[in-house]
Amino acid sequence: MQTDSLHREILELLQGEGKEVLIQEWAGSLQPYDLSEILNRLEHGQQLQLVSKIPESLVAETLEYLDPEQQYRILHHLDEGITARLLRQIPSDAVVDMLLAIHPLQSARLLDLLPRDYREKIDTLMTFPEDTAGSLATVDYISAREGWTVEEALQHIRKVGGEAEIISYVYVVNKRGELVQVVSLKEIILADPGTRLWELIAGDVIFVWADTPSEEAAKILSRYDFVALPVVDRHHRMIGMVTVDDLMDVIREEATEDMQKLGGSQPLSEPYFKTTVWSLFRKRIGWLLLLFIAEAYTGTVLRHYEETLSEVIALAFFIPLLIGTGGNTGSQTVSTLVRALAVGEVEFNDLIRVLQRELFAGLLLGLSLGGVAYLRALMLGVEFQLGLVVALSGFFIVIWASMVAAVLPLILHRLKVDPAVVSGPLITTLVDGTGLFIYFTIARLILHLS
Amino acid sequence: MQTDSLHREILELLQGEGKEVLIQEWAGSLQPYDLSEILNRLEHGQQLQLVSKIPESLVAETLEYLDPEQQYRILHHLDEGITARLLRQIPSDAVVDMLLAIHPLQSARLLDLLPRDYREKIDTLMTFPEDTAGSLATVDYISAREGWTVEEALQHIRKVGGEAEIISYVYVVNKRGELVQVVSLKEIILADPGTRLWELIAGDVIFVWADTPSEEAAKILSRYDFVALPVVDRHHRMIGMVTVDDLMDVIREEATEDMQKLGGSQPLSEPYFKTTVWSLFRKRIGWLLLLFIAEAYTGTVLRHYEETLSEVIALAFFIPLLIGTGGNTGSQTVSTLVRALAVGEVEFNDLIRVLQRELFAGLLLGLSLGGVAYLRALMLGVEFQLGLVVALSGFFIVIWASMVAAVLPLILHRLKVDPAVVSGPLITTLVDGTGLFIYFTIARLILHLS
Repeated sequence: MQTDSLHREILELLQGEGKEVLIQEWAGSLQPYDLSEILNRLEHGQQLQLVSKIPESLVAETLEYLDPEQQYRILHHLDEGITARLLRQIPSDAVVDMLLAIHPLQSARLLDLLPRDYREKIDTLMTFPEDTAGSLATVDYISAREGWTVEEALQHIRKVGGEAEIISYVYVVNKRGELVQVVSLKEIILADPGTRLWELIAGDVIFVWADTPSEEAAKILSRYDFVALPVVDRHHRMIGMVTVDDLMDVIREEATEDMQKLGGSQPLSEPYFKTTVWSLFRKRIGWLLLLFIAEAYTGTVLRHYEETLSEVIALAFFIPLLIGTGGNTGSQTVSTLVRALAVGEVEFNDLIRVLQRELFAGLLLGLSLGGVAYLRALMLGVEFQLGLVVALSGFFIVIWASMVAAVLPLILHRLKVDPAVVSGPLITTLVDGTGLFIYFTIARLILHLS
Repeated sequence: MQTDSLHREILELLQGEGKEVLIQEWAGSLQPYDLSEILNRLEHGQQLQLVSKIPESLVAETLEYLDPEQQYRILHHLDEGITARLLRQIPSDAVVDMLLAIHPLQSARLLDLLPRDYREKIDTLMTFPEDTAGSLATVDYISAREGWTVEEALQHIRKVGGEAEIISYVYVVNKRGELVQVVSLKEIILADPGTRLWELIAGDVIFVWADTPSEEAAKILSRYDFVALPVVDRHHRMIGMVTVDDLMDVIREEATEDMQKLGGSQPLSEPYFKTTVWSLFRKRIGWLLLLFIAEAYTGTVLRHYEETLSEVIALAFFIPLLIGTGGNTGSQTVSTLVRALAVGEVEFNDLIRVLQRELFAGLLLGLSLGGVAYLRALMLGVEFQLGLVVALSGFFIVIWASMVAAVLPLILHRLKVDPAVVSGPLITTLVDGTGLFIYFTIARLILHLS
């Protein structure tokens, strides 16, 4: 899509008089997402002008892709009747997001425009905490009654389907509003019109609770290859539906947060450029200070070995190399395991297996790097025995770092702490001091120092 | 789902005689994915026994969730007629995955069982390289002809929909097989039966090329909130359809790979426990050796300052602390920016803005950590001037690390190199040596050393 040229086109169209038909054609040839991108570039007055000239259904679909603040700025300036109709057409999860983002007084005013039963549903959705399936749920799903025929269900879909976000499933509820069955539109289309819905029952009803973490909901959805999941309360009453597009965003955001954590920062709550510098600072300084304090004990270790160090100054040359290598090894292991835990490939019960694997891998890595460390020591022109110290230290530090990095994430996972807090920087810091201890112990033994 | 108790149930059912009906009821009450989990736990003989007793359509849906090797082991032992019918019912992208995973002779034998036109389609799908939209495409989509009415399309869906993986869209092609329009099932259901499909045209046709990277296809799909995308060749001829479930997997796998890269390892091509220790070693040793060699120059830097160091041994105490802090700061910035680049929040053109932000954040972080570094130096009982050296070095090293970590990923992205190669370990290594240079330069200036 050529956003620039489309932008120019619409600016021209908006300037002329009586170009309603051309504007409608122009807008109709675009996907709602693309139209929202153009809308984003227009000034406020132009936005309202454009919105007033295209069909309401397209406006509703387009508004869905704008920021909550933008949505409100536009809705706020439209005629109340239009705003009310648009609110009814925007998927309810998007409406909830907007209402939670704007000022409570503003959102109260908008809610007043809605019919009472819909307002009550929206009110319920607004109560679910962030990061739960409930907070992502939309009430724009299709429900049916037990005992309906396929023909009746199809008629119902035709009647209410226009307002539904996804019509791929019909959720069958009983008189008490409890979810008893999920029928896919595919089954309905392919079945004989006279078939009763209950005759189509195929397999367990898969659902999530309103307080199921959204990350968990995403896992369930992709396990079964569904495009939406029903959300129920503790009495199995239907609350809404979470759709695959929202859960895809959840997967992306979770991955982003995990990466930021692995990098040693608290996760940002907004995209990079929406985060202020001050907030960047606050998200980073906490861990940096903590790591700084933890790292500070390396100074204590080194002061303890001050005499050893002054006897053989050359020992200092290898400090960054050895502890750096330990940190690198640990960082590799930690990032692999934190991710494997996040996607469910590894669990705490696998501890022994993981330890074995990382021990063997560590041995191989330690042998290789110990060998190279020895060569490096020779290149720096130190004597044979110091070379041996460096090589042995490299070997043991690499194995030690692998072990620490293998155990910590699994234990944290077991303790229900997000294993991603064991960041690369944390593991580096943890193995720095212990690495120095290994190094100087070996040095004293081999070089017979005090 | 209680896999254990279900497993016990089926073992009992399989032991008895004439329990066909009970077994069918038992299987019918499960989701295909759950059934596949049970099937995975059975021995080969039991698998075949179970498969022979449940309806073919359910077998096909269940096989889809098994490993390619497992799929083949089962299909291989069934009657050729059954195997042929099952192959036709399993989505073609899953069939392609299996055929590519088994021995070419085995896959040739299976292909021979398929009708010629379907075999040709499968052959085409098998030619697309991994990580492209073509390799994920299924030919089990619904196509329609221009000029059909909604009623005709619906009849067609009823006829062929059973074999389609997703029936949410109907792809309208012209006589040359070129994709001209995408109509959603929702539009068809809601429209008047007599409406022509072309009257339903709504917006641009969004599609991907067969060689579009699958990551890119995932971005397009989630941008427009679709559940499938049409895949076309260079002549716009319809090749197949990629579905949201496959693209969700792509998003997950990409995130996994990026995290492993950020941790300083080459990405694993298999889940953790399917990767051999030897392969873990090979994925890690490359970067470790490279980083080791890069880190080795820190030894050269230190040897250069040997005299300075021997004059004030206490300078060595702060080496791990200062370079560690630089590494941590760099790692935070890098992980944030690499991810922001991956999801498209940041581009190379934002370089100046990113630099400004990271410079200011670095200043704030440098001031805080410099201050704390000074306190730490006092606690270790060194003299005032050395404390000043440590504080100033901390300040400059943090800013320097932020800058390097901000610039590198953007430049790599510009050079079309995956920015995730700038791992935490790499940035740590890069700023270690330069950090030492900053430290000793400041030390010489303030302490008037040689």
